[in-house]
Amino acid sequence: MWRRVISGKVGKKLCNGILLSGLAVSPLLFSDYSSGSTLPLNSYKPPTYNDPGFVLKEIKKLGIEVSATTEELARHSDSWFSTDHPLPGEEPAAIVFPTSTEEVSKVLKLCHENQVPIVPFTGGTSLEGHFINTKKSITIDLSRMDQVIELHKDDLDIVVQPGVGWEDLRTYLDDYGLMFGPDPGPGACIGGMAATSCSGTNAARYGTMKENVINLTVVLADGTIVKTRRRPRKSAAGYNLTGLIIGSEGTLGIVTEITLKLHVKPKWESVVLISFPNLKHAAGAVTQFIQTGLILNAIELLDSQMMKFVNDSGETESKYEELDTLLIKVGGSSNEAVDLTINEVKNIAHGNNATTFKFAATEEEKFQLWNARKTALWSTIAYGKKHIDPNIQIWSTDVAVPISSFVESLEKTRLEIKESGLTSSIVGHAGDGNYHALILFKEEERALATELVARMVERALDMDGTVSGEHGIGIGKKEFLVNEVGQNAVDLMRRLKFAVDPNGILNPDKVFKIDPINDRSV
Amino acid sequence: MWRRVISGKVGKKLCNGILLSGLAVSPLLFSDYSSGSTLPLNSYKPPTYNDPGFVLKEIKKLGIEVSATTEELARHSDSWFSTDHPLPGEEPAAIVFPTSTEEVSKVLKLCHENQVPIVPFTGGTSLEGHFINTKKSITIDLSRMDQVIELHKDDLDIVVQPGVGWEDLRTYLDDYGLMFGPDPGPGACIGGMAATSCSGTNAARYGTMKENVINLTVVLADGTIVKTRRRPRKSAAGYNLTGLIIGSEGTLGIVTEITLKLHVKPKWESVVLISFPNLKHAAGAVTQFIQTGLILNAIELLDSQMMKFVNDSGETESKYEELDTLLIKVGGSSNEAVDLTINEVKNIAHGNNATTFKFAATEEEKFQLWNARKTALWSTIAYGKKHIDPNIQIWSTDVAVPISSFVESLEKTRLEIKESGLTSSIVGHAGDGNYHALILFKEEERALATELVARMVERALDMDGTVSGEHGIGIGKKEFLVNEVGQNAVDLMRRLKFAVDPNGILNPDKVFKIDPINDRSV
Repeated sequence: MWRRVISGKVGKKLCNGILLSGLAVSPLLFSDYSSGSTLPLNSYKPPTYNDPGFVLKEIKKLGIEVSATTEELARHSDSWFSTDHPLPGEEPAAIVFPTSTEEVSKVLKLCHENQVPIVPFTGGTSLEGHFINTKKSITIDLSRMDQVIELHKDDLDIVVQPGVGWEDLRTYLDDYGLMFGPDPGPGACIGGMAATSCSGTNAARYGTMKENVINLTVVLADGTIVKTRRRPRKSAAGYNLTGLIIGSEGTLGIVTEITLKLHVKPKWESVVLISFPNLKHAAGAVTQFIQTGLILNAIELLDSQMMKFVNDSGETESKYEELDTLLIKVGGSSNEAVDLTINEVKNIAHGNNATTFKFAATEEEKFQLWNARKTALWSTIAYGKKHIDPNIQIWSTDVAVPISSFVESLEKTRLEIKESGLTSSIVGHAGDGNYHALILFKEEERALATELVARMVERALDMDGTVSGEHGIGIGKKEFLVNEVGQNAVDLMRRLKFAVDPNGILNPDKVFKIDPINDRSV
Repeated sequence: MWRRVISGKVGKKLCNGILLSGLAVSPLLFSDYSSGSTLPLNSYKPPTYNDPGFVLKEIKKLGIEVSATTEELARHSDSWFSTDHPLPGEEPAAIVFPTSTEEVSKVLKLCHENQVPIVPFTGGTSLEGHFINTKKSITIDLSRMDQVIELHKDDLDIVVQPGVGWEDLRTYLDDYGLMFGPDPGPGACIGGMAATSCSGTNAARYGTMKENVINLTVVLADGTIVKTRRRPRKSAAGYNLTGLIIGSEGTLGIVTEITLKLHVKPKWESVVLISFPNLKHAAGAVTQFIQTGLILNAIELLDSQMMKFVNDSGETESKYEELDTLLIKVGGSSNEAVDLTINEVKNIAHGNNATTFKFAATEEEKFQLWNARKTALWSTIAYGKKHIDPNIQIWSTDVAVPISSFVESLEKTRLEIKESGLTSSIVGHAGDGNYHALILFKEEERALATELVARMVERALDMDGTVSGEHGIGIGKKEFLVNEVGQNAVDLMRRLKFAVDPNGILNPDKVFKIDPINDRSV
């Protein structure tokens, strides 16, 4: 069997037990593959990269737009909302704007052959540093590929390009009485949503990106174009390539076309707002909704602090009770069906000491009630800027735990943040056991916020949960991922990565380490 | 860049452009990896295998049961229902019965190190030749690992071993008011169900195995044990290893523990039977159910021929109209909710010229109505034996197409089979666009049946569908898979396979070719 080769001995490598020397090695050589099923970090020579200059010239020759204006470089390096920000010098060498799958293929082929790293970008709304250029790399911005290619309304699917924004898609589908399930933060595009396997308020009912993509057109590292599947709503034919690419954060391939599952928009839908004296009662109600088998389209929990911030923001017409609150969407194929469900929700709410129970009778009321959820993030930021510090920062992070641990996890996190002296609000997808802590902090309090997040994540793991329900790993949670799934599972991911991207050009330093020394974590 | 090495030149291989000679090569050497993202069939030296004798002795030394009785060899080589049967000599060298993950790990490590192929087995109910020992191999039977490890009823999940049968699981969960979604043919076990990504009558409502597995414990080819995830109902942390393993048909790893998502059993459920004058009217009703957004727990279509066979079998108490028939499950959290939905179903049925509309008012009636669906396969076989030939064979195959093409696809298939002179029945999961043709044939008509299946599959592809909605590829549909997803996608699957199973020991010759010459297809 093969021996593992310790990196750093270029020109003197063990090859199946025979010593070779003087080879002009490419970054990942034969001897870099162990003969086993995984690829531990120290078992291969990490990739090395070349300056992007030559590749950029070649890309320009192909007629593909390349930009390196200060503004474009800045916009593709960072966002205010991101948990992780670039270090000095961490900006792309240039931004490339392809307009077709074929152009993406040509760009990747050039990068692969010349060992130039490349970072994909669509909406730029991800939170864990996914599009930071940790190496001297090119950013490939797919936002010009923003067309709906084909709507198949009788098949309940749609073929779109990666630069389509989910909000634009929602508007487009409204006219057909159709909807797409995942609803992440504003500005997100389908390409990035597939890359991070995001979800949103509808996930307990309609699933995450994993359950809502039928097929993907993916350009692999060497420029090979693969379509993962045709358009059946289910298939048992061959490996689930679609499922492998979704959530791989641009490290396995670049998505250039996506067929999405659609749903019929509920003919009737109402919003219910219920306030509880405390989290335990809210949780009791949620458990009962689930155990009763009620089909609810969303069960969002906004904690008392969040309701206070929403009131303070002045963004909503009415004021809310500043209590732990559930916002629920009830849908159905008839008004009677919706009424029946609302009644069941009401009975359960009262059985769990609800202090307020409101439901929307009109579209306007529906909008008003749901508005608390929509303005949650902005209200928290506004509160921080107004009452704490105009330069306040926000750390928006998420974990998910088995549903019976949801409230305990959330409550302990809330208490811990409060005791630390920092201010935060919490919003959760109760049907999934997934919640977000929105922690406000001044720059000098970053270390404290970091520690609080680490404890929130570790507690989620102690409860058999995950370090991210919908934001992903990026550069921010790499160490946590090892804690979550163990070294073997991460070594397996790394093996898959280098099997399809042998030069390690695709979005380096995201999801897991690819280099034991030259790594960029938080 | 690396050059591709043509196989068959052992001892004289190109290694990064440098000629080496005299190496004692292991089956997959460095030079077998191209530097690209895929692994085309002719770009590497195919695996070679050793006689299992030595490994079997070592396994016995470990205290793991090994059997090679005629009866066990036969039982693990074939089943009457399978589409593909073993050729002479295609039987396991022996059957190994591990009782723990650690034992599976030890067995695989031995097989990996000694290049001995190994075929996983649980219920033995798969239909596409998944457990045929195409090479001189060991079969690893996981049916002794048949325990429920932990039920987390408040989290709606359960941890089980691969040998647990889904019907036993159903009985177990009944006591808790819980259920598991997928319901394939009788006798299937969770391990094999994960391997083939099966589903059943509930899939349009509850999803396939892909959507119903939270995590897997998998033993990789070299014996490495990986747990793909903890127990959150959703996660965006790292690659979707769970999703990659499900449907990989035992070619990437062997599953030894599975955490399944559970659902609350509908408090109230009824069965509706509707007969239509022809398929088009049945299809019209299905389209309207979907477009209305009705949530139905199953929409099964049994064609007129199937109803005739069910009547003929005498297995059911009442006789059915011998017309194209929909069998529908309507569930809800209250009796009123179920009644409301049944009324909507009724209105749509009548608007589509239904000739019969029955719904079950009692548990007994529910059982009786659904019985037509339960006895479908057996009735078809019984009919064939009684009226055609006591030695009749059955070819049970499935495809799935976009839902708007469901009826056209099914109708053309039915007509083509009829015109061929063979007898068949059809049962479909209408909500998914997935259907099964059960083709009866005498051994001398096998070539005709093969051709009919090929045409059914090709037509499904012409309609942008898949060559299998729930049975998988096995050895039977390898060529069709290439037609479905294209050579690049299959070459990517092959690259993933050899990245984690470099010696090619895991279930050889299934899903895609691993050897251009020494292959076993149908």
